[in-house]
Amino acid sequence: MNALLMMGCPELPVQTAAALYIANKLNREGFEVTAAGNNAAISLLLNSDPEKHYIKKAIDLDRCIANLAEKKTDFDLCFVFIHSDSGISYLATVKSLSKAKTVAVIFGKDIEPLIKESGDSYIIAAKAVHNPTPLRAKIDGVKSWAALTK
Amino acid sequence: MNALLMMGCPELPVQTAAALYIANKLNREGFEVTAAGNNAAISLLLNSDPEKHYIKKAIDLDRCIANLAEKKTDFDLCFVFIHSDSGISYLATVKSLSKAKTVAVIFGKDIEPLIKESGDSYIIAAKAVHNPTPLRAKIDGVKSWAALTK
Repeated sequence: MNALLMMGCPELPVQTAAALYIANKLNREGFEVTAAGNNAAISLLLNSDPEKHYIKKAIDLDRCIANLAEKKTDFDLCFVFIHSDSGISYLATVKSLSKAKTVAVIFGKDIEPLIKESGDSYIIAAKAVHNPTPLRAKIDGVKSWAALTK
Repeated sequence: MNALLMMGCPELPVQTAAALYIANKLNREGFEVTAAGNNAAISLLLNSDPEKHYIKKAIDLDRCIANLAEKKTDFDLCFVFIHSDSGISYLATVKSLSKAKTVAVIFGKDIEPLIKESGDSYIIAAKAVHNPTPLRAKIDGVKSWAALTK
């Protein structure tokens, strides 16, 4: 199975930590994990994991979306990191282009409208800007990521 | 040899990435690395490295300063992460309490005044908020951390 972590602009420090934390759980379940993001988001991820223990594959976000649109690649599970409306747009894009089951990872200060707009995706949401602990608790609440693909 | 990474409030996403990147370099040189920070800074670090590949020891910042003041602990090298005046205060605190050689890791938008206030510490500085690449280039410019302790 393979999973995509789709990251938005990294204004909020919890995004990178949550992505690495989820990547580790996915790796342990045997998923092949790809991270997609803009230049800053990917650089944060790769510099946070210089020996590639957690993130083995990273790709530019626009390239990733193009690959999905052209059916060059697809995933079983796609996590979209959402702290603003642009994250909701990426979620809609993935839903339209991919067969992946989608997980909306929602954080920031004002999460309620984002939860509402995430529709039927599996939702992991917590108010979190600088401290990832509330979001981590929600991530830990998922006992099997493979089960979400079914 | 042992090194301390002293982190301030984690408003800026590059801090955690820079700390993990430096920790990896220190580990590879055989340093024992301790990270100190407030609750949010430490949580970001530990959730970014859930298997403890890079950060094996973390301590609350106030506890760390108390331990230095009471001479319960000391370090050969201390990195202070600075993106505001509070970082400069921590640098002054470490200089007054510890025998460690200090490294000022300066980032954010307005770095010039912070560089001036860092005095005789070894300085690693780059304009960086969301993208750690400029700071990483400066970190990579240091060929031996052990040499800085002499």
